[in-house]
Amino acid sequence: MAQGGKPKHRVVIIGGGFGGLYAAKSLRYVNVELTLIDRNNFHLFQPLLYQVATGGLSPADITSPLRAVLHRQRNASVIKGEVVGLDLGRRTVSVERLDRPGADEFAYDSLIVAAGSANHYFGHNDWEATAPGLKSIEEALKIRHKILAALEAAERCQDPDKRDAYLTFVVIGGGATGVELAGAIAEIAFHTAVHDFRNFDPRVARILLVEGNERVLPVFDDSLSARARKHLEAMGVEVHTGAFVSDIIGTSVTLHKGDTTSHVNSHTILWAAGVKASPIARWLANGNADIIDRQGRVKVSPDLTLPGHPNVFVIGDLANYSHQTGEPLPGLAPVAMQQGRYVARLIAARLKGKSRKPFRYLDKGNLATIGRNRAVGVIRGLKVSGRIAWLVWLFIHLMYLVEFQNRLLVFIQWLWNYITLNRGARIIVGETPTRSTKVDEHGK
Amino acid sequence: MAQGGKPKHRVVIIGGGFGGLYAAKSLRYVNVELTLIDRNNFHLFQPLLYQVATGGLSPADITSPLRAVLHRQRNASVIKGEVVGLDLGRRTVSVERLDRPGADEFAYDSLIVAAGSANHYFGHNDWEATAPGLKSIEEALKIRHKILAALEAAERCQDPDKRDAYLTFVVIGGGATGVELAGAIAEIAFHTAVHDFRNFDPRVARILLVEGNERVLPVFDDSLSARARKHLEAMGVEVHTGAFVSDIIGTSVTLHKGDTTSHVNSHTILWAAGVKASPIARWLANGNADIIDRQGRVKVSPDLTLPGHPNVFVIGDLANYSHQTGEPLPGLAPVAMQQGRYVARLIAARLKGKSRKPFRYLDKGNLATIGRNRAVGVIRGLKVSGRIAWLVWLFIHLMYLVEFQNRLLVFIQWLWNYITLNRGARIIVGETPTRSTKVDEHGK
Repeated sequence: MAQGGKPKHRVVIIGGGFGGLYAAKSLRYVNVELTLIDRNNFHLFQPLLYQVATGGLSPADITSPLRAVLHRQRNASVIKGEVVGLDLGRRTVSVERLDRPGADEFAYDSLIVAAGSANHYFGHNDWEATAPGLKSIEEALKIRHKILAALEAAERCQDPDKRDAYLTFVVIGGGATGVELAGAIAEIAFHTAVHDFRNFDPRVARILLVEGNERVLPVFDDSLSARARKHLEAMGVEVHTGAFVSDIIGTSVTLHKGDTTSHVNSHTILWAAGVKASPIARWLANGNADIIDRQGRVKVSPDLTLPGHPNVFVIGDLANYSHQTGEPLPGLAPVAMQQGRYVARLIAARLKGKSRKPFRYLDKGNLATIGRNRAVGVIRGLKVSGRIAWLVWLFIHLMYLVEFQNRLLVFIQWLWNYITLNRGARIIVGETPTRSTKVDEHGK
Repeated sequence: MAQGGKPKHRVVIIGGGFGGLYAAKSLRYVNVELTLIDRNNFHLFQPLLYQVATGGLSPADITSPLRAVLHRQRNASVIKGEVVGLDLGRRTVSVERLDRPGADEFAYDSLIVAAGSANHYFGHNDWEATAPGLKSIEEALKIRHKILAALEAAERCQDPDKRDAYLTFVVIGGGATGVELAGAIAEIAFHTAVHDFRNFDPRVARILLVEGNERVLPVFDDSLSARARKHLEAMGVEVHTGAFVSDIIGTSVTLHKGDTTSHVNSHTILWAAGVKASPIARWLANGNADIIDRQGRVKVSPDLTLPGHPNVFVIGDLANYSHQTGEPLPGLAPVAMQQGRYVARLIAARLKGKSRKPFRYLDKGNLATIGRNRAVGVIRGLKVSGRIAWLVWLFIHLMYLVEFQNRLLVFIQWLWNYITLNRGARIIVGETPTRSTKVDEHGK
């Protein structure tokens, strides 16, 4: 509301991920009226999502209710809802109503679009039902369910061939998410579950990591990729690089590697091969296909604005920002956070009639964890791997988690799991698919 | 397997709740081959289920994977599956298969049935869709979803009457579960959420607790019921005793109190008015209706056996044991645990050709919590209430939680929530019902 004088500058933020939330928090002391819209009522600490998928942590451990994060920030409202439309001319955002048909409109003076990305199946959307990706809590729970249900089915299966299919895990995609998932599944099969079953020894499990490139973690250089591969193999993961999946039908995965075609039978096929930007990018482009890149991201201006719309900002996974290195910045939390802060400061500056220099990403490093005591990455230009890399990774995640209230306990819990190799959250909640081919739509 | 000589005595346990799990654990050093069957892969610490329903704890915090609890107990196998049949003549239990139609049969020499209870709608099963009860993790998540979704909808609602319906919470049943739920919802509305919303003040919420008896917590005596009522009213709960629900249609609850009929409009109607025994009791009765009581429980012999079947034991919520006081023992965790231990010892004794005295329940007390610093109950015959009762309640639950591995951290988390009145698990996971009347079947 206007407190006398002219009405407050209205900022609408779409998405409560790292980009949107850091933009909102950075606007705390700026004289704006702020509305943060997200389809969920929580911020998700995505880097630890694989821990939920593998039963190490609970959803609540890696999420913070958006209202709790912003409850003392009186200039901010949170709206839980699905964005169903944008009108760049009228400057409104439409949000689906919960209680009846239709949409509510939210007017903005500045708009920050931080809607993120979703799984990309490269034209094979039918694979999604069989091979879930790992972008949301629901998907993480679906993956957890698949892994645990496969082990339960193996315990009750008397046919060795069928049992093998239950004990085969295929992770498609050798980027950070795929490596984390494969490593965590190896820890479950070869450590956590070792004494849990009577009908089979979980150590006979096969865990395949399939990557189209010639090496895993292709964002890093050759030597780090080679180290990551060694770590994975030492943990018992079969690493298949230069290998493509051409089909997934039921429990059968068709793999191509050079001239060889093979079929793998698995009840647990997981997708970590690619992401694409939220479809909201197309609404922003408004028919101007030139500003959308191949992954569906918006090619933004140097100040992160939508070309032609200086009051519309696009940040995080949704943005293709190539002005710094010629290459788009990677879809990482630190990029989104820095962009969120930049946009908040730019809006504050503009309100004072000032301007700011173009956005610049300060790259402090990038780490990928493989398992307990195993990580690889780059810290301020320095290559690290093994236990030291893992400890640094741990410390950085501790810092971010503790930034939200009450997260120290979660971290202790998690550290405890790492030490004991226990996974207390390996519980199956919700309906069990009664037939192996039945896929539950709702992530359980 | 038989290790030379005669084959081992086979014990099958149906249900991994307090009764079944304590029976299994108590058979650890007995020379039997033990199979524990449960539809879930975890043991549920039911007394804290209301904390999951109200966003204070996560499902994993109050569950222990059954395989983890029993993984060092080499004489025990865990089977995750739904029991679909019993053959008392052939001495087999049928369990639904996961991967294809049909059932697996498990043969027993001794059978322990500890299948527990479900919500009882007294002939109004159609109410279940609108007014979920609180017996499983799925139901707790469904209730959590309803409470949080109602608050979110209120934030977006501009019509005051409609908003009132979102901010009205009706808990039907004034026993321990109803009192805990009503108290926890009052804490959410009047404390946790106070700064969370911009469109309304959560302190205007109405929380109604409806009980057919003339007093809440009717298992206790008049003075404790009166104290519980005072605590509830001090927390802002409207307590309606001597009141009956005659209908639930959509969001409308019809209440009768004496000659007065009233209608309450609410999007969050919760059922805590009654439980009935698992339908497995009818299979055990095998046509002999005399041994089933009005709540569907099996009237067991003094040694907890099924009349006429000395090798079949019925324990916990499924059993009506009236030999001690003339009244059935209450459906409480300590009763089930003591019965589980008794049966295990009786089986061990029989294997040595010995016998045991009839079961006797040692009543150490019973406490019901109402909210932070508020509980009432009886400890070793002594009536307690207020903060002391609450601290004792807290201590007892600590002990039991710590009994399972790694539960101290959960307790610290929970204590922290109590101190800060924060509820970090107040996250909405899964599909949001897009219309207020749509009810999600799967607890989300």
